Amino acid sequence: MIYVVFVEPETPGNIGFLARTMKNFGLYQMVLINPCPLENDSYYKAMHAREIVSNRQEYDSLAEFLKIKEIDFAVGTTGNAGGSYNLPRIAVTPDNLAQSLNVNGDIALIMGREGDGLTNKELELCDVVVSIPTHDAYPVLNVTHAAAIIFYELFKTEKTYPVEDLDEASLTEKQGLIECMDEVLDHLDYPAHKKKNASTVFRRVLGRAFISGREAHTLRGMFRRIKERVE
Amino acid sequence: MIYVVFVEPETPGNIGFLARTMKNFGLYQMVLINPCPLENDSYYKAMHAREIVSNRQEYDSLAEFLKIKEIDFAVGTTGNAGGSYNLPRIAVTPDNLAQSLNVNGDIALIMGREGDGLTNKELELCDVVVSIPTHDAYPVLNVTHAAAIIFYELFKTEKTYPVEDLDEASLTEKQGLIECMDEVLDHLDYPAHKKKNASTVFRRVLGRAFISGREAHTLRGMFRRIKERVE
Repeated sequence: MIYVVFVEPETPGNIGFLARTMKNFGLYQMVLINPCPLENDSYYKAMHAREIVSNRQEYDSLAEFLKIKEIDFAVGTTGNAGGSYNLPRIAVTPDNLAQSLNVNGDIALIMGREGDGLTNKELELCDVVVSIPTHDAYPVLNVTHAAAIIFYELFKTEKTYPVEDLDEASLTEKQGLIECMDEVLDHLDYPAHKKKNASTVFRRVLGRAFISGREAHTLRGMFRRIKERVE
Repeated sequence: MIYVVFVEPETPGNIGFLARTMKNFGLYQMVLINPCPLENDSYYKAMHAREIVSNRQEYDSLAEFLKIKEIDFAVGTTGNAGGSYNLPRIAVTPDNLAQSLNVNGDIALIMGREGDGLTNKELELCDVVVSIPTHDAYPVLNVTHAAAIIFYELFKTEKTYPVEDLDEASLTEKQGLIECMDEVLDHLDYPAHKKKNASTVFRRVLGRAFISGREAHTLRGMFRRIKERVE
């Protein structure tokens, strides 16, 4: 079980934003530590994730929550990674975390206050601290945007090609398309080296583009029509 | 130069959230297309990135902006990646984009409306479409959270700073190649909807493949020869 813990939220709307981004990435259990009073905006900003706000748990302190729930692995977050001399704030990146996190057991992903983040004392309760690489000009992310990035990295490592089962063209489909173009070139009275170049470029472009079966079909239809005309 | 384009924002605060997350990841030029009236909240939510809101540019339509600024590479975003049968919505993931994006030239990262995202017509203006992998239970992210994730991926791979000098085909070269293919199609007695599909697929394949100037030249030579034969 992964708990998402928001320590002392100050803005009701941010509770909703956090709930929404949790559901976007398959997380459901929200824990609020000593929160501001919830308002309509907490539910409104959650959009289609209102049930996450309704089903939240509340505790008085982070230490209390970690103890009562017997959390196996506590992940703190900070926008203020301290460098090597500030031990509680030595941090890993979100992709380091995603690669190494063992999701067996109970995990807490702990987000800090909007203004001040987590305290050193709270970070000392954590097994690891994660910090998002940012530009020096403005290193402090809004808390729910930081959460979205961390959730995204964790979600991403669970799946290999996650955008809607995109049906990449099979080798046969791509080969068929390339042959179709080669046949057109054969009818063009095109110098051999130019023909070879064009064929190579076309193959490479298809390879880099991760062309789908449907797209290969569309382009093949076009080349077939061209072939009829140049034969 | 990377432009961040927000098409028809409806909520003043989201303009501020977008500005903040831009600055967090080293992006500075905001473009608003036909926005709602800005309010104090647009500046308040930007926190220490107010100057990005003040320095925004505004245009009436996405097409107008892309044309006037002579954008070399337009990146659309969608929370509704269409699967293989919806050509304008076939998408890559943010890390695919980050790995392949050539940051020489002018790039537009285009975010959609809060409610409805970008239309098919707007997505057809784009060279590549990116979609964030999400959980099926609630696949639609808040627009500024989606933006943060994409900016983060680009920043992580150092793409918000120009690094190397790959010779990607210029807009004119790509446009010339696409027009060349369209002219061939015009001579083919090809049904209009098939012609449009083939044209969209071809543009997208070129976009996703990050075709070089040399490759564009080679393919254009081929289409020119085909054209001579089918005329």
